[in-house]
Amino acid sequence: MNNKTTVSEIADRVNKVLEMINTHVPVGISNRHVHLSQKDLNILFGEAYQLNVFKDLKQPGQFASQEKISLVGPRGKIDKVRILGPVRKQTQVEISVSDGFKLGIEPPVRASGDLIGSPSVTLVGPKGSVEIENGLIAAARHIHMGENDAVRMGIVDGEKVSIKKEGSRSMVLSNVTVRVHKNYKLELHLDMDEANAVLAKNGDLFEVLR
Amino acid sequence: MNNKTTVSEIADRVNKVLEMINTHVPVGISNRHVHLSQKDLNILFGEAYQLNVFKDLKQPGQFASQEKISLVGPRGKIDKVRILGPVRKQTQVEISVSDGFKLGIEPPVRASGDLIGSPSVTLVGPKGSVEIENGLIAAARHIHMGENDAVRMGIVDGEKVSIKKEGSRSMVLSNVTVRVHKNYKLELHLDMDEANAVLAKNGDLFEVLR
Repeated sequence: MNNKTTVSEIADRVNKVLEMINTHVPVGISNRHVHLSQKDLNILFGEAYQLNVFKDLKQPGQFASQEKISLVGPRGKIDKVRILGPVRKQTQVEISVSDGFKLGIEPPVRASGDLIGSPSVTLVGPKGSVEIENGLIAAARHIHMGENDAVRMGIVDGEKVSIKKEGSRSMVLSNVTVRVHKNYKLELHLDMDEANAVLAKNGDLFEVLR
Repeated sequence: MNNKTTVSEIADRVNKVLEMINTHVPVGISNRHVHLSQKDLNILFGEAYQLNVFKDLKQPGQFASQEKISLVGPRGKIDKVRILGPVRKQTQVEISVSDGFKLGIEPPVRASGDLIGSPSVTLVGPKGSVEIENGLIAAARHIHMGENDAVRMGIVDGEKVSIKKEGSRSMVLSNVTVRVHKNYKLELHLDMDEANAVLAKNGDLFEVLR
């Protein structure tokens, strides 16, 4: 800002930033990963095994572990699939539709935890392997939102919104479920197929449409 | 249709079909592939080599060949990449953004033939290998349209439209260039990232939005 900047010009800029904040969310791109139950973790890595933190994720308490496993399906194998911690009640494997072609299993698009009737897959770790009966999904896109973000943006928990990104592969993606929780950090989760289709990189801003 | 079907009901159904025909295009999904110059074909497969037809493609004169090659980049290698024929003036390699991560090369989104300044990649065949200086792209989505289709749909060559598909990953994709030619068959071309992001299978219909 130079000496000629007027108060009204500054106000205009502030308003633009505020409007941006109220209508945009940053993206976090999810590569394929696994959430394990303690029971399955024990089978794959040994009795009473504890995951080691590789790095913390944006959502509080969640972390990428140092540990990786392989996924095996009828058509192929995917190595070096990272485990996310902490352990959960039920093992859940999140892959892209592209990954599904490699494995020979078509993942249904589901919200996290909605695993009834989802396909089986085999997990291979350094100490053993386990074939889960259900739990292979492609994660349905969603937005994590803190309570203050939700009030600020005028959005309620469970609401479905569309999101938009400009560019050479400009796109509007519908059916994005918003999950509001006091501990959540504002973040849109897309998988690799979606991110590559719209040419998004981590942290890119998407406009929220109502 | 039962005995109670009236003439106006039949007319309604016909009108719905006509509206569908005038507003929808079937998708053809492009997996990674290579178009070769005769010079590069000779290096990879031997002097004066002729491609063998594996199957004809929807666009007249175009075919998938029986021959496959490998792509090599700084980070990795992709095998069994199919060659499409006939040969062209300049070699062109079309991959997805996901493929680009495997190779360690980021493909620019470009129209076919728009190769100036696009990245280098190495092609490996049974008789030799060649490092092309330019030619690696992610194909920009587009619609092939015959002249009759264009008149019927009221669209002109070079026009940009948006396309829409409903479903759990409902999406509107903008910046779709229409190419009209008397020999073209009506077909929307998407790459694997785009198709997987919107859960499309070959032949699925997309609505054209203006």
